Amino acid sequence: MIVTVIGIGLIGGSLALSLREAGLATHVIGVDQSFENQTKALALGLVDEIADLASAISRADLIVLAVPMDAMLTLLPLLLDGVGDHQIVIDAGSTKQRLLATVEQHPRRARFVAVHPMAGTEYSGPEAAVPGLFEGKTLVICDAEHSDPAAVTRVGGIFEQIGMRLVYMGGAAHDLHTAYVSHISHITSFALALTVLNKEKEEQQIFDLASGGFESTVRLAKSSPETWVPIFRQNRLNVLDVLTEHLRQLQHMKDVLEQEDYPAFHQLIEQANLIRKILK
Amino acid sequence: MIVTVIGIGLIGGSLALSLREAGLATHVIGVDQSFENQTKALALGLVDEIADLASAISRADLIVLAVPMDAMLTLLPLLLDGVGDHQIVIDAGSTKQRLLATVEQHPRRARFVAVHPMAGTEYSGPEAAVPGLFEGKTLVICDAEHSDPAAVTRVGGIFEQIGMRLVYMGGAAHDLHTAYVSHISHITSFALALTVLNKEKEEQQIFDLASGGFESTVRLAKSSPETWVPIFRQNRLNVLDVLTEHLRQLQHMKDVLEQEDYPAFHQLIEQANLIRKILK
Repeated sequence: MIVTVIGIGLIGGSLALSLREAGLATHVIGVDQSFENQTKALALGLVDEIADLASAISRADLIVLAVPMDAMLTLLPLLLDGVGDHQIVIDAGSTKQRLLATVEQHPRRARFVAVHPMAGTEYSGPEAAVPGLFEGKTLVICDAEHSDPAAVTRVGGIFEQIGMRLVYMGGAAHDLHTAYVSHISHITSFALALTVLNKEKEEQQIFDLASGGFESTVRLAKSSPETWVPIFRQNRLNVLDVLTEHLRQLQHMKDVLEQEDYPAFHQLIEQANLIRKILK
Repeated sequence: MIVTVIGIGLIGGSLALSLREAGLATHVIGVDQSFENQTKALALGLVDEIADLASAISRADLIVLAVPMDAMLTLLPLLLDGVGDHQIVIDAGSTKQRLLATVEQHPRRARFVAVHPMAGTEYSGPEAAVPGLFEGKTLVICDAEHSDPAAVTRVGGIFEQIGMRLVYMGGAAHDLHTAYVSHISHITSFALALTVLNKEKEEQQIFDLASGGFESTVRLAKSSPETWVPIFRQNRLNVLDVLTEHLRQLQHMKDVLEQEDYPAFHQLIEQANLIRKILK
């Protein structure tokens, strides 16, 4: 299978590695608007060659679109314009409703399978690509009923072979749930980093004292604005909803601590502990 | 060296393991008010014997107090009443000012070395004890000038031998910095767990979709109220200060997203990214 990866960053690059390691990709063509990324992707062995968009599309069996969500909206219809019945296009986007709406009426809509591999790190770019990133993680396939059934089966099989569990849902449900399990975590991490950076001027002390707990809650704050602003933009209403509730919960914890109502504080923590039954 | 550990949980139990592994503890005596913890600690090999408080104190070279912060306030003066000039008492507490004030005038204050090993996990109890927990982490030694200099040197040497870096600071500075690098992370995790549990009723979806990012920001929400309520209580003013700033930052991110001011949102994330230079 010849695979074209458009956007050779953390996700596109890691997927190229996984597909090759599983023996699924025999040749990987990379497309990236950044010359620096092109050079790095070749040097790191993520892709076999760099090509221009038209040539890369025409020769591919599978086309993976792994660019920021704003670029996705422009690129996906263009890609679909050029693909034939033997080709499949997938995205790897973190939001789905707007993207799905953009291509809803496209004559070649059935060649597109919308997927979201629920895996990533706080790093970006070709050098962030790692083998095994998707193993044991979940792949969400969205609005599968609008895709060619054979294409959905093929895509599902490919991701199962690199170790992913498949979950099917509609684009609206996807965007709601990811606001809870991914997007809000990034917002709180960014805000936590800003809090510490604004108030705690003694950086050496943070560096010395920061233990595992701090690092794990704040590590997502290293995530790039190029990736995340378009995600928050496209999932704005869901994110605002969750953020409003999160602010309410934090304010409540603050009130209880101000009032020194420790039995109530104890109870809040006990309720929060129920997350144990949900986390693996 | 005979070591007595009072409170054989995550920290006390892990320290017992580390001290024995480093060849520093030849015999470990455990004290715990819970019969269940006593049984587990023996079964897990964390301690060699369980003893009553008086006997365990009288025979120890080093006494480690690793109980919740509220119990610490009562127990530390009692321990100091009973120790001689050849013995050293250390705590492992997450807050320091109140504890230090409690024993400030104690005639045997010099036998006490206040330390905070900046290491832990979200789990508690003897079964949470793990070898190597402290390796590569920081030990804060507080108000060392009020301790016997030889005792401070001895304690510093012990923790260096189990792989810790030493940092010295006053109790007030300790409590301020830990509010930033540890306590606020727990508050945000608890609030995030409550947000998700209250709003997201489809638990199976969280379970399926929760990726590494969510797990890492929310894992501290598994932490026990028995440990954390006394910490927040004793560091209340610092925690409220940091929490107020965190709420302000979150509200600002929300305002910017509501106003769809994406250039400003981009800038906020870029500022948050500066945490990269502080995190290891």
